Amino acid sequence: MHYTIQQISDALSATCEGDTSLTIQRAAEPADAGPNDLAMAMSPKYAEALGGGAARSAVLWEGADWQALGLSAAIFVPRPRMAMAGITAMLDRGQGIEPGIHPSAVVDPSAELGEDVSVGPLAVIGARAKIGDGSVIGSHCVVGMDAVLGKNALLREMVSIGARAVIGDRFIAQPGARIGGDGFSFVTPEVSDVENVRKTMGDKGDARAQSWLRIHSLGAVEIGDDVEVGANCTVDNGTIRNTRIGDGSKLDNLVHVGHNTRVGRDCLLCGQTGVSGSVDIGNNVVLGGQTGVADNIFIGDGVISGGGTKILSNVPAGRVIMGYPGIKMETHTDVYKAQRRLPRMARDVEALKKAVFKQSPSD
Amino acid sequence: MHYTIQQISDALSATCEGDTSLTIQRAAEPADAGPNDLAMAMSPKYAEALGGGAARSAVLWEGADWQALGLSAAIFVPRPRMAMAGITAMLDRGQGIEPGIHPSAVVDPSAELGEDVSVGPLAVIGARAKIGDGSVIGSHCVVGMDAVLGKNALLREMVSIGARAVIGDRFIAQPGARIGGDGFSFVTPEVSDVENVRKTMGDKGDARAQSWLRIHSLGAVEIGDDVEVGANCTVDNGTIRNTRIGDGSKLDNLVHVGHNTRVGRDCLLCGQTGVSGSVDIGNNVVLGGQTGVADNIFIGDGVISGGGTKILSNVPAGRVIMGYPGIKMETHTDVYKAQRRLPRMARDVEALKKAVFKQSPSD
Amino acid sequence: MHYTIQQISDALSATCEGDTSLTIQRAAEPADAGPNDLAMAMSPKYAEALGGGAARSAVLWEGADWQALGLSAAIFVPRPRMAMAGITAMLDRGQGIEPGIHPSAVVDPSAELGEDVSVGPLAVIGARAKIGDGSVIGSHCVVGMDAVLGKNALLREMVSIGARAVIGDRFIAQPGARIGGDGFSFVTPEVSDVENVRKTMGDKGDARAQSWLRIHSLGAVEIGDDVEVGANCTVDNGTIRNTRIGDGSKLDNLVHVGHNTRVGRDCLLCGQTGVSGSVDIGNNVVLGGQTGVADNIFIGDGVISGGGTKILSNVPAGRVIMGYPGIKMETHTDVYKAQRRLPRMARDVEALKKAVFKQSPSD
Repeated sequence: MHYTIQQISDALSATCEGDTSLTIQRAAEPADAGPNDLAMAMSPKYAEALGGGAARSAVLWEGADWQALGLSAAIFVPRPRMAMAGITAMLDRGQGIEPGIHPSAVVDPSAELGEDVSVGPLAVIGARAKIGDGSVIGSHCVVGMDAVLGKNALLREMVSIGARAVIGDRFIAQPGARIGGDGFSFVTPEVSDVENVRKTMGDKGDARAQSWLRIHSLGAVEIGDDVEVGANCTVDNGTIRNTRIGDGSKLDNLVHVGHNTRVGRDCLLCGQTGVSGSVDIGNNVVLGGQTGVADNIFIGDGVISGGGTKILSNVPAGRVIMGYPGIKMETHTDVYKAQRRLPRMARDVEALKKAVFKQSPSD
Repeated sequence: MHYTIQQISDALSATCEGDTSLTIQRAAEPADAGPNDLAMAMSPKYAEALGGGAARSAVLWEGADWQALGLSAAIFVPRPRMAMAGITAMLDRGQGIEPGIHPSAVVDPSAELGEDVSVGPLAVIGARAKIGDGSVIGSHCVVGMDAVLGKNALLREMVSIGARAVIGDRFIAQPGARIGGDGFSFVTPEVSDVENVRKTMGDKGDARAQSWLRIHSLGAVEIGDDVEVGANCTVDNGTIRNTRIGDGSKLDNLVHVGHNTRVGRDCLLCGQTGVSGSVDIGNNVVLGGQTGVADNIFIGDGVISGGGTKILSNVPAGRVIMGYPGIKMETHTDVYKAQRRLPRMARDVEALKKAVFKQSPSD
Repeated sequence: MHYTIQQISDALSATCEGDTSLTIQRAAEPADAGPNDLAMAMSPKYAEALGGGAARSAVLWEGADWQALGLSAAIFVPRPRMAMAGITAMLDRGQGIEPGIHPSAVVDPSAELGEDVSVGPLAVIGARAKIGDGSVIGSHCVVGMDAVLGKNALLREMVSIGARAVIGDRFIAQPGARIGGDGFSFVTPEVSDVENVRKTMGDKGDARAQSWLRIHSLGAVEIGDDVEVGANCTVDNGTIRNTRIGDGSKLDNLVHVGHNTRVGRDCLLCGQTGVSGSVDIGNNVVLGGQTGVADNIFIGDGVISGGGTKILSNVPAGRVIMGYPGIKMETHTDVYKAQRRLPRMARDVEALKKAVFKQSPSD
């Protein structure tokens, strides 16, 4: 892949100056950039490092003095991260999965593959599975029986798509993602300790020890368009209805989404977030890394949780939350500041008790 | 799979009324149910939605007025979740792994496969591995050398069973589960910072920077009967003895169980729970999602932890705990309520100090 | 593998006494040891259990009275865990991957394999990949195009190495480890809620709902010598530069390392730890299980975090931290103790207010 500065600028609908016929092959950080690299120097802070590298061209912020920076050519962008989306899409060298069906793949004769579908080495496509035009199935992937995968999907290696999953267009799955494992759903013959604790918020009652019976997952997973799931992440089948992930939502690595849960449109679930079963998550929700969500609750549109938040009850739309249990971020900050002063406050209270009640400090 | 209402009712040891010869193919939620579906409407709340669907038959709570609900037939169950176990087991359409050994599987000639064992495409069965009658090995699974797997196992795709693992009957493993990775065990030539911190609860001493030497895992993993492990979960080999999971215990997705740990009978380890090495967990323990358990502690029979609990010290049998660090749930609730009022209490204390000591408020 | 007591003692540079020609095959815990096993009884506490087994030989602490313990031979070691490293390395029976290239493996003709490389069944080696002498590639592994793997690597089954990864010598990867998934990096066309919240620490502003555009990962993963990564762990590609793991660092199961992050030398990242993108971690850092690290921060050399710590801001070198958010361990302990007394302190403050201000207690 070789592009001129002009071509990249045009693709970004940006402006450029200098020798815009310069050809670049790679993007690079300013300090690492060679003469044929395009340096990413979208703020004055990053531009400082240009001197340490050998870049002749760079992507800069609007109004930057490219000549003073010693460059031969420059592209100017108003929103740097947005430009990154365009530039990185152009320069992505991919994983090298060859076009066509690799002879070692095991494709069921009843599977329906669209046009220009690539199937990598040792992938398995099950009975009656349908794969849309232009999709790329990485090596060792499994697409289960009766699963439907839309157009232009990209599955990296060792991705599982369970039987009966229905997935939209432009799906991306990183290595080892698991769509359609069975839900974690068990029941005891009689009322269990856990059911008692949930009712009473702490009291187990006197339930006897029992074994667990399995509730099978008859539902599947239903995923919209433009969804991406991270490496080794897991989305479980629903029990009766399908587990659902809405259009445009993105799941990071090692994220878990339990059975029956609905994730809305354009959500981000960051690394190692875990969502229990039967949760209802709205649109444009962002859950920070290692967020946990208890089962059977709802999270309104536009909710944002900070990293490590444990969401144990319903969250109204638009709220920004943090903590364990998750509360409004402002309240969390106040509580947290007060906590840091707690040991001193404890001493103050003891002194007050002594002064007011003439008590000796309690142990 | 087609069943009459009578057949399902009989299988559940339930009672039924109406046209019990009606045939159903699928279970469905009340609002989604078609005329040939069995609607799951086990409480009045769910039954309300029956009008939105087209179900002619439903599973109802005992004493429900099925005719008033517009149904032609109904099954009555005393414990709805329990009925779900039976119904979903009957109607599970499975993943479609064909009987027999797929020609693409790589089975070592010294492996011993029982009767009616299915081995999916591209699975690998190692030297001297033994697989019990009726077990189903999914595509791309690896059963390591000298591993023993009992009867009627179901391994979904890409499950790893390490060398020398010993697993009981009716084992279920979801996609990407890893049994028998090596334990995480390293040592420095001299006493390390971490060892000092553990002794002193915070002081590193002056240990110098050192590299880590590996302690190999000579033990394996030993799993009882009726155990299920979730997608992408990991159970590590023991160092000298085996890591052990007792009969009837269930691990959810992305759960981690460290080396040497013993998990008792009939435990539930919910999503993303992590148990360190050399932990001793009793029977009938339930660890909520994202629970963490420090190494070298014990957790008594019947302990229940709320989601997100970090268990840093021994927990006596029967206790219900929550928080970081995990404490009795009632205490946690009290502490938590007091925390929420902390910012106000801080202001109260400042006012008291001013009144009692004539102090100006501290910064 | 059969060794005499003398051979093992020599390999450990230890001393031994008694019938040092005794041959052992296996290490065992004292109570489980048979007559041909070497009992690991490195402290008086463990030695107590020797009577319950049938060991004739044991590894003991220095100065132990082996004859009084009823043994025929003994090895004496000054640092027991250190001896474990040597003994377990000698007695490791491995996973049984055969030498040579398995005929079912798919090796690109342009790949370069060193001497004595083993490639297990159904592994895939991509175009121009280079694998160093003596490396063992487990079954179903994928080594991506242009990836470089050093000498004497051991990849267990189903490990992914993404395109262009560069990995040093003696790399060990447990089953299902994912090196080189794409980073989790998305941008909205206009400023998003999340960007506002980060700036204001809680206020979302009035950003409208937007969809996410993908920033591709052009960088790869760069790993030093003597690194080990656990089962199902994930290390993502960098955006422009490479994500980097330094020499001697070890990652436990289900650990996540985000794009652009740098992990220094000789670090331990314990089970389910998650490190966000663009984090800079120094050398000899130990992160306890389920630690979380926010993006774009630095963690100095020698930092130690307790299990469950959420690190939300920079941590200076040498600090021992704990909590959510992570603070100095001593402070955390003080705060925690005061928290436990909070409900009582709340009552004290109410009593004080009543006495001092003649107020009735607030609700």
